[in-house]
Amino acid sequence: MERLKHKSAQKVRELIRQKEINGSTAGLAKGYTQANLVILKKELAYDFLLFSQRNPKSCPILEVTDIGSYIPRLIANGADIRTDLPAYRIYRDGILHEEVTDIKSYWEDDMVAFLIGCSFTFESALIDHGIPIRHIEENSNVPMYITNIPCEEAGMFSGPMVVSMRPMKRQDAIRAIEITSRFPSVHGSPVHVGEPSDIGIKCIDKPDFGDRVTIYEDEVPVFWACGATPQAVAMESKPSLMITHSPGCMFISDLKDDTLSVF
Amino acid sequence: MERLKHKSAQKVRELIRQKEINGSTAGLAKGYTQANLVILKKELAYDFLLFSQRNPKSCPILEVTDIGSYIPRLIANGADIRTDLPAYRIYRDGILHEEVTDIKSYWEDDMVAFLIGCSFTFESALIDHGIPIRHIEENSNVPMYITNIPCEEAGMFSGPMVVSMRPMKRQDAIRAIEITSRFPSVHGSPVHVGEPSDIGIKCIDKPDFGDRVTIYEDEVPVFWACGATPQAVAMESKPSLMITHSPGCMFISDLKDDTLSVF
Repeated sequence: MERLKHKSAQKVRELIRQKEINGSTAGLAKGYTQANLVILKKELAYDFLLFSQRNPKSCPILEVTDIGSYIPRLIANGADIRTDLPAYRIYRDGILHEEVTDIKSYWEDDMVAFLIGCSFTFESALIDHGIPIRHIEENSNVPMYITNIPCEEAGMFSGPMVVSMRPMKRQDAIRAIEITSRFPSVHGSPVHVGEPSDIGIKCIDKPDFGDRVTIYEDEVPVFWACGATPQAVAMESKPSLMITHSPGCMFISDLKDDTLSVF
Repeated sequence: MERLKHKSAQKVRELIRQKEINGSTAGLAKGYTQANLVILKKELAYDFLLFSQRNPKSCPILEVTDIGSYIPRLIANGADIRTDLPAYRIYRDGILHEEVTDIKSYWEDDMVAFLIGCSFTFESALIDHGIPIRHIEENSNVPMYITNIPCEEAGMFSGPMVVSMRPMKRQDAIRAIEITSRFPSVHGSPVHVGEPSDIGIKCIDKPDFGDRVTIYEDEVPVFWACGATPQAVAMESKPSLMITHSPGCMFISDLKDDTLSVF
């Protein structure tokens, strides 16, 4: 694990392709931007792209492949999104059908892959600035909640925003807003700080996805729009076939995190 | 004119709809964001939206209307893009067919309107910061040039980037980069500063569109990606029908320029 931290994105993708890496990609190829994956058939691609345009905080697009192409030529030319992630989920009619380590046999000529910014990028930036990330400290998944904030509808896609939560001291929260503001292509600044019920979260200790984390007395919960939103919204439409990464098993691009900073 | 400067966007749109305003919208409803308009049929909308996603500096999207809808509900709910611009251009098979003041009779149920950020917004910001804009001083159109910078292709759309040029003192150029960096949804920071031939411009005194402006000895030309790019690129594909605003006759939205600043 430690030795993979300092390898290039290309090298780590190669090891994943050879099935030598098969778990979470967190911490691998440090400095390279990781991405969520959503694959849909062409007939849903316009609505999904429009949804992302209207909801850039929930669905910050890093790349959309050409129709039928499994090569993300702009952010990782030479990569193959059918083989270069450790694990995939196949959804049929909105229901999880199976989990696989390779989707070559599922790929069709009218598929489009959406690579969507992931919070790993801004978490690295926060840690680099001395702001600890609780779920990393507790070795668990980030807690995620379904809010009462409606996404902007686009064609067949609509639904509430899903947010991720990181508790921190008030002063750190202000700094975290500054830091993540610089990264609009990986969810950007928070959507809410403080009282969870303001955005429709009933119980902060019962996340809808991921794990509960400890919140200390002098801390405030900080909420970011989450890449789970587009997946959840797409699934709502029960597409005949949708393929995504498995949680934590992201696509590692050739982009460097630092280049995503707008300042 | 002066009295229209301080009216709201809604009021000015109303006057345009009643044909009481029929020329350029430059300077009207000061502080409100104006937008370029491109209307295409649904079958070209996906490629055009993807083109804009891949070329955000040339084609910063403010809103895409729902298929068949002429109401830009997110940036000017209640407006009607068929009547609320002073003049439109109708292109058939890529050729300018006619110029009209109302497109109600041209509207079809499978049309999509793209409202694209316009340099008026960042020019206001530059002027507010004391940086003069030459083509405004000279009461002419901004000079625009076809460069050798290729846009990222998307489906049927490809072509070179078109840039607009504003000459300024070197110190102002640095400040202008800072200021326009804050406005990614209206072309953002410049794409080039200095030697025109570096980006394939043969003669700075012969713009491909717009008017020549004076460049003084102590000035440097500063180039921004231009909203003429998506129009030019779309026209290249010779769509059976494309409708755009007439030059200078923009759509005035309810967005305030200041809210487009990311910092």
